[in-house]
Amino acid sequence: MLVILQSGANQEVVDHVVERIERLGLRAHISQGEFRTIIGAIGEENAAFYDQIRTIEGVENVVSIMKPYKLASRDFQPHDSQVKVGNVTIGAGAFASIAGPCAVEDKQSCMEIARAVKASGANMLRGGAFKPRTSPYSFQGLGEEGLKILRDCADEFDLPFVTEITDPRNVELVSKYADMLQVGARNMQNFVLLSEIGKIRMPVLLKRGASNTVKDWLMSAEYILSEGNSNVVLCERGSQGFENEMRFTLDVGAVALAKRDSHLPVIVDPSHAAGRRDLVMSLALAGIAVGADGLIVEVHNCPDKAKCDGPQALTPKMYEKLMQQVKALVEIIKQNQVLQETD
Amino acid sequence: MLVILQSGANQEVVDHVVERIERLGLRAHISQGEFRTIIGAIGEENAAFYDQIRTIEGVENVVSIMKPYKLASRDFQPHDSQVKVGNVTIGAGAFASIAGPCAVEDKQSCMEIARAVKASGANMLRGGAFKPRTSPYSFQGLGEEGLKILRDCADEFDLPFVTEITDPRNVELVSKYADMLQVGARNMQNFVLLSEIGKIRMPVLLKRGASNTVKDWLMSAEYILSEGNSNVVLCERGSQGFENEMRFTLDVGAVALAKRDSHLPVIVDPSHAAGRRDLVMSLALAGIAVGADGLIVEVHNCPDKAKCDGPQALTPKMYEKLMQQVKALVEIIKQNQVLQETD
Amino acid sequence: MLVILQSGANQEVVDHVVERIERLGLRAHISQGEFRTIIGAIGEENAAFYDQIRTIEGVENVVSIMKPYKLASRDFQPHDSQVKVGNVTIGAGAFASIAGPCAVEDKQSCMEIARAVKASGANMLRGGAFKPRTSPYSFQGLGEEGLKILRDCADEFDLPFVTEITDPRNVELVSKYADMLQVGARNMQNFVLLSEIGKIRMPVLLKRGASNTVKDWLMSAEYILSEGNSNVVLCERGSQGFENEMRFTLDVGAVALAKRDSHLPVIVDPSHAAGRRDLVMSLALAGIAVGADGLIVEVHNCPDKAKCDGPQALTPKMYEKLMQQVKALVEIIKQNQVLQETD
Amino acid sequence: MLVILQSGANQEVVDHVVERIERLGLRAHISQGEFRTIIGAIGEENAAFYDQIRTIEGVENVVSIMKPYKLASRDFQPHDSQVKVGNVTIGAGAFASIAGPCAVEDKQSCMEIARAVKASGANMLRGGAFKPRTSPYSFQGLGEEGLKILRDCADEFDLPFVTEITDPRNVELVSKYADMLQVGARNMQNFVLLSEIGKIRMPVLLKRGASNTVKDWLMSAEYILSEGNSNVVLCERGSQGFENEMRFTLDVGAVALAKRDSHLPVIVDPSHAAGRRDLVMSLALAGIAVGADGLIVEVHNCPDKAKCDGPQALTPKMYEKLMQQVKALVEIIKQNQVLQETD
Repeated sequence: MLVILQSGANQEVVDHVVERIERLGLRAHISQGEFRTIIGAIGEENAAFYDQIRTIEGVENVVSIMKPYKLASRDFQPHDSQVKVGNVTIGAGAFASIAGPCAVEDKQSCMEIARAVKASGANMLRGGAFKPRTSPYSFQGLGEEGLKILRDCADEFDLPFVTEITDPRNVELVSKYADMLQVGARNMQNFVLLSEIGKIRMPVLLKRGASNTVKDWLMSAEYILSEGNSNVVLCERGSQGFENEMRFTLDVGAVALAKRDSHLPVIVDPSHAAGRRDLVMSLALAGIAVGADGLIVEVHNCPDKAKCDGPQALTPKMYEKLMQQVKALVEIIKQNQVLQETD
Repeated sequence: MLVILQSGANQEVVDHVVERIERLGLRAHISQGEFRTIIGAIGEENAAFYDQIRTIEGVENVVSIMKPYKLASRDFQPHDSQVKVGNVTIGAGAFASIAGPCAVEDKQSCMEIARAVKASGANMLRGGAFKPRTSPYSFQGLGEEGLKILRDCADEFDLPFVTEITDPRNVELVSKYADMLQVGARNMQNFVLLSEIGKIRMPVLLKRGASNTVKDWLMSAEYILSEGNSNVVLCERGSQGFENEMRFTLDVGAVALAKRDSHLPVIVDPSHAAGRRDLVMSLALAGIAVGADGLIVEVHNCPDKAKCDGPQALTPKMYEKLMQQVKALVEIIKQNQVLQETD
Repeated sequence: MLVILQSGANQEVVDHVVERIERLGLRAHISQGEFRTIIGAIGEENAAFYDQIRTIEGVENVVSIMKPYKLASRDFQPHDSQVKVGNVTIGAGAFASIAGPCAVEDKQSCMEIARAVKASGANMLRGGAFKPRTSPYSFQGLGEEGLKILRDCADEFDLPFVTEITDPRNVELVSKYADMLQVGARNMQNFVLLSEIGKIRMPVLLKRGASNTVKDWLMSAEYILSEGNSNVVLCERGSQGFENEMRFTLDVGAVALAKRDSHLPVIVDPSHAAGRRDLVMSLALAGIAVGADGLIVEVHNCPDKAKCDGPQALTPKMYEKLMQQVKALVEIIKQNQVLQETD
Repeated sequence: MLVILQSGANQEVVDHVVERIERLGLRAHISQGEFRTIIGAIGEENAAFYDQIRTIEGVENVVSIMKPYKLASRDFQPHDSQVKVGNVTIGAGAFASIAGPCAVEDKQSCMEIARAVKASGANMLRGGAFKPRTSPYSFQGLGEEGLKILRDCADEFDLPFVTEITDPRNVELVSKYADMLQVGARNMQNFVLLSEIGKIRMPVLLKRGASNTVKDWLMSAEYILSEGNSNVVLCERGSQGFENEMRFTLDVGAVALAKRDSHLPVIVDPSHAAGRRDLVMSLALAGIAVGADGLIVEVHNCPDKAKCDGPQALTPKMYEKLMQQVKALVEIIKQNQVLQETD
């Protein structure tokens, strides 16, 4: 932690800051510049220290040097993590192709969709049973009934499934059926939910919130990790932007940054980012090229009757085409990474 | 709902759209333009209809005309609402001056702060017992112990208090002590929490999320209102911006817009917006001038020892000065509004 | 400048950095921490140094301590500046009420508008002759003819006028007629234009770009100041946001920040921020309360026939009401500031 | 244009709107809904009409149906355009690999860089002679001397070159040396510059501004096209975001959207988006995968001595590796597109 004093700060300020630093159990190191005095605080920092020092009269700014997350960082674990979901592995070269409807509506359509995406090469199923909807008047999902349908479809086609959880009271219920729990973008900083999920060992898909930095995202992962659950996969689904012809701005830079700073696998959700199906394929390919460890894509056998997010769902036929390109691209990216590492 | 067809859409598309509109129980009204065909869908809409129609092949865009919220809108209730919190009234000319520490740390400091803000003219107390912190390693609040301290301080100085709730399982516990529940910005779209709070009759302070539109905000209010709890006060605390010398961008336009479209009271939180105390006073005054029905301000008797958000807390002395200006400004704004209405 | 080395950086890196610092004419001061080494670079920095050091292998980050602008900063001049435009003074307690049409359309309507705003208390006129329009097919202004009309109206009602300049080749032409030159938000980083305007002594109104920080804004002011023209007034007109019911987000925090870090006067343009007249009054009052030294407001005698930005123009009658409130508010804010300073 | 009246608008309002629509040379088509009246305005619209109608008392909103740009749209030209720069073709399957230093500093280093990028497969050279710098105290480029050096390097290695133009008075000068003119992000809405460049026939690289929508971008292209210069290539270089570990947010969705709505070639600048070299390769690959027609990348033979933007420049060796991956990826993407089209 570097404490930058205001220009003209006198000895009294310096002494005060040094005393406070020492009271926090850190060592102070004074550096008198021509224009400013800077005091380094050496030792194990925490976030509260930062605020307390920054608040002292005469302090201009405090610069934190250490990253606020630990377990999520590459400092803690340098090599890529892998997360296992049923018989599927995600990360460190293993690619997840997750697909399915936004919300489960009935068993028949869910089966049809599961069959189709499996045929095209998906290795995991997605589907919502508890839907967080912006409007209280919109379809909120089938609840436990939806979970049962998903379980049946998953078993039928040997595809582990991921489904969203929105309520800390439902962890047990959802875990009974699902193979992986999804924390949605709007709940990325629902710390109560994160802690609860941290207490079990079920794999978690943690979406990035629409206006959260990569640091915020990794701090939310840290909530889960620090409770003992290390099975966290990150998912980028677009940040809030000013462009109103797409729903969100898919932030491929955030994927690159998260993969650089963290060992956790990162996948991409092009469907929610685009909000419109005609851009899903392009965004999916961009996600793979930037280095994502998987894709989660909405597919519906009859999008214009979907109860939720129809405009962004691919038809099974479109998904098939997407998967052809995905396979080719994953192959080439993997070869290049090998090339790069052995270089 | 207006359905705009792609240029060159043929009769088949028109027939398909009309059929779907009618199947949704609406009436279709075709308007053939020189370049485009537009089909009006007349009747009671809902959000799902919108998506389903927009998804049809040959449809370029769908424009919704009706607002998606009802109970929160001025169409539903044209005059300003008032919300009562203990002996304090908020809205329709009644101004709330809420102040207190970010988090309750111990009884003595909380009492001191409460005494000070009361003396300066505050009519409500704020304080956190359950703190949603970005880092799992930061101070998370005293929990029930903090609620007890707040209750004691509130009683001692006859100041009703508001405190944040983050867990739907805590509604009963927190309601036992508090006079008003706060839903923080990060939980604005925690729909599970909103629904739970809607089921009781306790007043609610609903903060705007950092990247949520006014429409989103009113939809979240609608969650609470539609469950039967009409005691909702909105709170603007800044939106996510690109300026890194302030924590958030206080969006006075959002206050003006919310007050135009909704009858609910709106207050302003200049402390979290600024994230630094030297700008709190200016932002507070801007909030009043734009028409806010109250202020919620962080005050700490010893900010440089605060366990949470010290840099943005005012000292009691600074708060006293702020309140002198607040009183003068509230008076002048109120006079002007009367002037305007009787004009 | 503080150079933070990567954890594990060896002596070779330290030596390399020190050598580079010294070659730049600065003195190096090494501070060995438990986890990191930090090297202070003491002396006269410039922006290029920063990038060159940050680029060295083994450097984690470089923290600049000095502000990149000089003449615009309060370090250079601690007290508020005043800028004189004809017989009007702006800043340090002197308030500018600037009003007029978006674009000048013809002499008669411009005269009518000037008469009306003067009667309501405006002390300056605004109007566009060269309009930067998003579409090449929109009305681009009357050019020199418009300048002549503005000059006549200004003289008739003894109101100095401000008008936008968009082309460095027009500095002489526009200066022949106008009392103050406006640099629009889209040209805030048109450095060629800024330099050209810096070479004359005409007052300049410099709008903040829609996605520029306060630091960027002051750097653009520095371009003008460093050429020798010290008559710069800043103008906040809203930043790019995600809310689509307003055109821009009026950033009152940016006004507060600019006034804290710079001595230059700052005024507010509520018309362009709102983009709709029903919110102009509220935003104007917020601007005054946050401490602005003036307002620039669009007024049109017949907004629904305006060739440009009609929806945000106030009618003369609305402007009259606004000015009643402005006067009362300016008075109270001024009293409070005096109170505060003598405290 | 659809004019949506306020709920409760009476016949007088309807008549007024109809009259105004007809006076603008359009035909009105009234559609009486249960809750609202909508009036379609049929005929050749323009932007001013939109504002004038929206301004009428009793009008809630006006929805424009037609795109505001014409020559840039796929409606005007359905197939992909190609732009020729010297012996290089960009667009419709032809890929541009542009590389070089941020700013030209001296002949020797420019020659070295040109040789290196040519050897790695670049087919165009980039380099700045007139640099738009945020600070007036930063290196502003070598001016004409820089253009001469670029010309020599370009000729030596048979690489046409692109360089930025910032001043409308320099069009002739820069055109004398350069093969393509670049309009930087900060000048995207410098309409004076755009018009001037439109009058010549030199190819133009038009970067997207940091907070401009795709529609704004295409409108700026329209300025150039409508003056008669059809040689426009678009370039995405990142939008302004809230993440402070990268300079900008590379918006791959904007690339996809621009290519969907416009026939103009679109390339990607990963260097300015990232602002740091360790993310440039990932972003470059994402850009190709999303469908870009080329890359423009900063390369410097000695980045830690670069006078401008050193931290984002690749070394020649890094560029060589990047180009290996680029070639593989371009091939696979091209194959897929052929596959898709013939499907």
